Amino acid sequence: MNKRKIINDPVYGFVTIPFDIIYDLMEHHWFQRLRRIKQLALTHYVYPGALHTRFHHALGALHLTGQAIDVLRSKGTEITEEEAEAVSITILLHDIGHGPFSHALEHTLVNIHHEAISVLFMNKLNEEFGGRLDLAISIFKNQYHKKFLHQLVSGQLDMDRMDYLNRDSFFTGVHEGVIGYHRIIKMLAERNNELVVEEKAIYSIERFLTARRLMYWQVYLHKTTLVAEQMLIKVLKRAKELFQQESLATPSEHLNFFLSENLNEKDLEQKGAKIIHHYSFLDDTDIVMALKTFASANDFLLSFLSKGLLYRKLFRIEIQNTPFTSDYINMIRHKTATMFQHNDVDSEELVSFGKESNTTYSVSKEEINILLKTGEVVPMSETSMINIPQGIITKHYLCYPKTIL
Amino acid sequence: MNKRKIINDPVYGFVTIPFDIIYDLMEHHWFQRLRRIKQLALTHYVYPGALHTRFHHALGALHLTGQAIDVLRSKGTEITEEEAEAVSITILLHDIGHGPFSHALEHTLVNIHHEAISVLFMNKLNEEFGGRLDLAISIFKNQYHKKFLHQLVSGQLDMDRMDYLNRDSFFTGVHEGVIGYHRIIKMLAERNNELVVEEKAIYSIERFLTARRLMYWQVYLHKTTLVAEQMLIKVLKRAKELFQQESLATPSEHLNFFLSENLNEKDLEQKGAKIIHHYSFLDDTDIVMALKTFASANDFLLSFLSKGLLYRKLFRIEIQNTPFTSDYINMIRHKTATMFQHNDVDSEELVSFGKESNTTYSVSKEEINILLKTGEVVPMSETSMINIPQGIITKHYLCYPKTIL
Amino acid sequence: MNKRKIINDPVYGFVTIPFDIIYDLMEHHWFQRLRRIKQLALTHYVYPGALHTRFHHALGALHLTGQAIDVLRSKGTEITEEEAEAVSITILLHDIGHGPFSHALEHTLVNIHHEAISVLFMNKLNEEFGGRLDLAISIFKNQYHKKFLHQLVSGQLDMDRMDYLNRDSFFTGVHEGVIGYHRIIKMLAERNNELVVEEKAIYSIERFLTARRLMYWQVYLHKTTLVAEQMLIKVLKRAKELFQQESLATPSEHLNFFLSENLNEKDLEQKGAKIIHHYSFLDDTDIVMALKTFASANDFLLSFLSKGLLYRKLFRIEIQNTPFTSDYINMIRHKTATMFQHNDVDSEELVSFGKESNTTYSVSKEEINILLKTGEVVPMSETSMINIPQGIITKHYLCYPKTIL
Amino acid sequence: MNKRKIINDPVYGFVTIPFDIIYDLMEHHWFQRLRRIKQLALTHYVYPGALHTRFHHALGALHLTGQAIDVLRSKGTEITEEEAEAVSITILLHDIGHGPFSHALEHTLVNIHHEAISVLFMNKLNEEFGGRLDLAISIFKNQYHKKFLHQLVSGQLDMDRMDYLNRDSFFTGVHEGVIGYHRIIKMLAERNNELVVEEKAIYSIERFLTARRLMYWQVYLHKTTLVAEQMLIKVLKRAKELFQQESLATPSEHLNFFLSENLNEKDLEQKGAKIIHHYSFLDDTDIVMALKTFASANDFLLSFLSKGLLYRKLFRIEIQNTPFTSDYINMIRHKTATMFQHNDVDSEELVSFGKESNTTYSVSKEEINILLKTGEVVPMSETSMINIPQGIITKHYLCYPKTIL
Repeated sequence: MNKRKIINDPVYGFVTIPFDIIYDLMEHHWFQRLRRIKQLALTHYVYPGALHTRFHHALGALHLTGQAIDVLRSKGTEITEEEAEAVSITILLHDIGHGPFSHALEHTLVNIHHEAISVLFMNKLNEEFGGRLDLAISIFKNQYHKKFLHQLVSGQLDMDRMDYLNRDSFFTGVHEGVIGYHRIIKMLAERNNELVVEEKAIYSIERFLTARRLMYWQVYLHKTTLVAEQMLIKVLKRAKELFQQESLATPSEHLNFFLSENLNEKDLEQKGAKIIHHYSFLDDTDIVMALKTFASANDFLLSFLSKGLLYRKLFRIEIQNTPFTSDYINMIRHKTATMFQHNDVDSEELVSFGKESNTTYSVSKEEINILLKTGEVVPMSETSMINIPQGIITKHYLCYPKTIL
Repeated sequence: MNKRKIINDPVYGFVTIPFDIIYDLMEHHWFQRLRRIKQLALTHYVYPGALHTRFHHALGALHLTGQAIDVLRSKGTEITEEEAEAVSITILLHDIGHGPFSHALEHTLVNIHHEAISVLFMNKLNEEFGGRLDLAISIFKNQYHKKFLHQLVSGQLDMDRMDYLNRDSFFTGVHEGVIGYHRIIKMLAERNNELVVEEKAIYSIERFLTARRLMYWQVYLHKTTLVAEQMLIKVLKRAKELFQQESLATPSEHLNFFLSENLNEKDLEQKGAKIIHHYSFLDDTDIVMALKTFASANDFLLSFLSKGLLYRKLFRIEIQNTPFTSDYINMIRHKTATMFQHNDVDSEELVSFGKESNTTYSVSKEEINILLKTGEVVPMSETSMINIPQGIITKHYLCYPKTIL
Repeated sequence: MNKRKIINDPVYGFVTIPFDIIYDLMEHHWFQRLRRIKQLALTHYVYPGALHTRFHHALGALHLTGQAIDVLRSKGTEITEEEAEAVSITILLHDIGHGPFSHALEHTLVNIHHEAISVLFMNKLNEEFGGRLDLAISIFKNQYHKKFLHQLVSGQLDMDRMDYLNRDSFFTGVHEGVIGYHRIIKMLAERNNELVVEEKAIYSIERFLTARRLMYWQVYLHKTTLVAEQMLIKVLKRAKELFQQESLATPSEHLNFFLSENLNEKDLEQKGAKIIHHYSFLDDTDIVMALKTFASANDFLLSFLSKGLLYRKLFRIEIQNTPFTSDYINMIRHKTATMFQHNDVDSEELVSFGKESNTTYSVSKEEINILLKTGEVVPMSETSMINIPQGIITKHYLCYPKTIL
Repeated sequence: MNKRKIINDPVYGFVTIPFDIIYDLMEHHWFQRLRRIKQLALTHYVYPGALHTRFHHALGALHLTGQAIDVLRSKGTEITEEEAEAVSITILLHDIGHGPFSHALEHTLVNIHHEAISVLFMNKLNEEFGGRLDLAISIFKNQYHKKFLHQLVSGQLDMDRMDYLNRDSFFTGVHEGVIGYHRIIKMLAERNNELVVEEKAIYSIERFLTARRLMYWQVYLHKTTLVAEQMLIKVLKRAKELFQQESLATPSEHLNFFLSENLNEKDLEQKGAKIIHHYSFLDDTDIVMALKTFASANDFLLSFLSKGLLYRKLFRIEIQNTPFTSDYINMIRHKTATMFQHNDVDSEELVSFGKESNTTYSVSKEEINILLKTGEVVPMSETSMINIPQGIITKHYLCYPKTIL
């Protein structure tokens, strides 16, 4: 059977499956589950095209990794076929630990970082595949001596980021987020086991950094996405309370498992097998179906929020550069309490506030290394050539029902 | 409140809401439901990008309709603001009667054409909006004297088709399906109350017809889509049987309603209100969640098929230009029976066959009318200028579990 | 020195120089001359973006050839590095014999097919490069035993055609001409020394054929292009007459050479060296500069036509499916004569007529061969799968000064 | 006659002629001349697709101006049909005073700013068109009371810049230069007679500024473009010397005129008519044809440089952030003198140096004004929202024949 399938991808044209084992991993139902997990969760409420899945993103990152391998090899860096296969596996599976609506889920039901779960899945798959994922896992954990292979998967210029910026721009239609990935990949090189980028690509790198920043504010932290996510967090928290009071259940036994437990990373050791079992059946459907049943629940808060999400009657959100004063928050809470006094609801639960930050590029973290024409390698911040937007930008938000003000 | 929102659309860049009432209709939860109904049902199993929804398609068709109105007006055809608003409403709502996985649903649970349901929804909305949809409904039913307005919504060159070909090409990545919609729309005109197209666009029209045909074979009737749909049809039929035997229920009360009834268009009169109620809550989630619960059902057939769909273990499909002989079909059935003899299953249910046809352009139906440079209007088939692919092409298929042969 | 340069191409993103000798050939001033010869001659009078050059087309075809080589190799067809280099040279140089405004030139000053001149150039370059073009020339002349290599350069699905359709679509903005080259190339294969295409690409092939036909009528034989070319032909003929009467010279000694001679292919043997010398200095500049000087010439016809071309005051052109009657032509000539009676001009010279044909695909010529899933290879016309537009379409034209009617 | 033509533009799809007078102006041979003047002069030596003309750019800017007018009107800003026509004329003609290879020309033969010549052309056209350009000229000179109309043509966010960034990105293939013009234009508004941009577009503005900066370094001041331009400047200077010594003439009487004179802006008053006459016949052809004749001139310097340009044997260029030391320059000169000692040439003429600067955005100049959601208008530098790259970046270059070092 020919496993080197060609898959249409509107972003890159075609993606070719480069190794038989990649095909076999894609066929596994744990990977197929990613077909039902949207990359950008609730963002389609702002950008209706943003329905692409983690499945598609994994394929795209795989495609770019193949290109990067070709480029590095053409510049004399040795990458064996075994290593190429391994890094392809790593990038394919790097996000397999993501759950539905990850961000909201990690704040409420599954207090475990998705990378930890990815490792769990990879280990299990490694057993099933008779140890053929050993090298891939070692690269994922940055334990392999060729460090640049890990950097292709996770680093300042990794193929994960390169694909998601591209893909998210493409499907949202926010064209300003498009990056010159083609040029950046062509300019990659390896020096002393580290991924570097040739000086010629310096303006493309600058562009890449500003595109990323723009995507943060225009897409990832868009106020409508933020407020929808806040509402989903409130729904899941409330559902967990009610479930643990035995006054609610959802149609999904797997979601019920996570409503019943208060899990964190420490539980992975003892309950790992159980967690992975239920987690492997969880996708966007379970959450949306839960919202649909919650909409007619007796609990006012649960029903009010769930209907809001389903019918896109979202809360108002205010955003500013400084924290909201407690006076202002109290005033909003008071008004909310008055408005909802006849509903059996804790009005505090209808108001939420917090902050979001975004650092585009930090010289304190691992830097992008530039390969100068002279052959020297320098951290980007030490070249005077480009303007690097720095510093953390923080925005404060406050959300509450629209009818209040 | 400013209702003339601008929405990002990766296909057209931006779509602007042209009338306040359009915004209000979009806010209605019946329309929001279209956010959860994929335009191309199971096609994303072949083309992973094909996740776009009927919501997005409706917006796109609205956008093109606005452009067509501008073009017609600029050529001297009178379209009042009231008419422009009405035809915008019509195109926005033309598909509101679609259910999840329409094609499979109409063959199993809801034996009613989606257009009939669209009319039901429109009438209900018209009540809610105090008669403001009167003109829109009249255009939809082709009862308005300016026939070309109806043709913009439903005809050989309507904005529905124009958008879905574009949009389906875009999201599948099958670029060959891209049509020169921009040019065709620029070349639209009205003569004697009919929509015509200027001679200059004739090659774009030819291109449009071949693109459509290509999309049929490469996307809409792709063998993987066909086989997945056949499997879904079998699941829904089996679920209905079991439900009516009271040995099954799904988590969705709305889906249960349709499993419990054997509805067809005649029921609309008596049970219209009930049908519309349950239908208005039905979306892709209900079906996929049902598949997830069916996967662990006791019934072998239901579970086998549902798992196949969820994990993308699809049946084999054979396609040919002539009908399969009964000998061949019997042989397949026999092998299937042998293979599944220990499972409590009617092996006939695991084999399905049928045919699909596609007529690109038929001179017997309403024709595309060409406005010659001389001012004369002639049906396209009478101009000798272009090569019109004609005739019905029929393909026969036969599906069965992969393990058989 | 690193000769594997990367060149930006808006059509494909980047084109990489694959062999050192390719770089050296590109540096040769005979190849640099192609920078000053527009691919589509006067077409920019209709499509203002159509200014791309034969230089750029050669690069694009080179790029696609590299992709095709990779695809064929990945399917097990042996292509040695030497052969890959040779076929790259062949495609790079396949059009080096083109002159400025080729079509007009070949009808007037240089009655020699450009391919014959390409061979002349290649032979000369082969001498300069010490025989390193032997294999490339052998492939060009279809004398090499691996026939499919020649077919990559010249055949029903060659990389020349694939690039020019793409490139011409891109720069004219006639998007309907875009072809799924990516898919077609991915589906190429070799069987029995012949280039074949896998069955899966059949709709892309159909699309390719219709795109080509559309480009013929919408671009290559666009009436404005036709009429401008007719005017240029008349200018060059008239200039030749006057030059040979010694009453005119142009600023270009090289153009003057061709005005002075009446060359055809037979002259290549005796005057080859001289022809190639002057030809190698001829580009669009010589022709346009001549027009600029002709505009103020004393000869009415020459000046009238040259101004018309420079200022884009083009003649009227009538096009129809049947030949113009001699009555009609005579009437036009008569009117022209009357109109221009006070100018010292042979009015016949102001009227021209003729015909242009286009065959999209002919079963009588070499056919596209389809590699069926069964492994069988059949000519495309024998598969019943697609609709092949056939038959020659001929259009008749008549051009004359606008002021006449 | 219908003058509202539709023109294909690969950048925007279609451009429609919005007013009859626009068509008439486009037909004028002064405007047709822009068909033969490349927007980016010698840049196609680096980016082979960069052959687009000032003609095409004028059309593109016209198209965007039409969109901006629609947007402003839709937000309640009054723009009469007369004003819309006038500003369309202004943008169409804003660059009509450009000569071939402007930058090199203005440094050598025509020491007059192209805007001054544009005004000359507009005034002449105004006479021909019976005063119908009065308002357009008044807007061009910023004398009209609706200042925002002038800002559409010339300002921080004018349609000129918007088009050329887009167009230059498109044709060079430097996709990082693509700007979200669509979004920026949708967000334009007018307040107190000034053009402002809504806060929502702030990230698009940031993107626009970085795209512009990137285009400067990657395209406009690309080292290969710089060195080619330096060579052309040297050619033109030398040709002028020789012409004035009566030892040279070119085939173009119009170019000869400018070689014979030492013009600057003061000459416009006395010799305006003569200047405009010759200038109106000057295009890229005259310069390239001159190079072709210079290539075989007796003067070594002229011939050496001209051949270098024609055959793309460009000089070496060194670029650095600090000025070159006189020691280094003297060393290069000395080596050059030694190398060329047997040629009758002043070796100083073969070495050139200088600097180029680029300011992306300066708060000292007119600023971009942001319309906050609160309704307030503030200069961009006063919002803390975005990161504005500031400061002048200067690069120093030194060019000399490649064979030297």
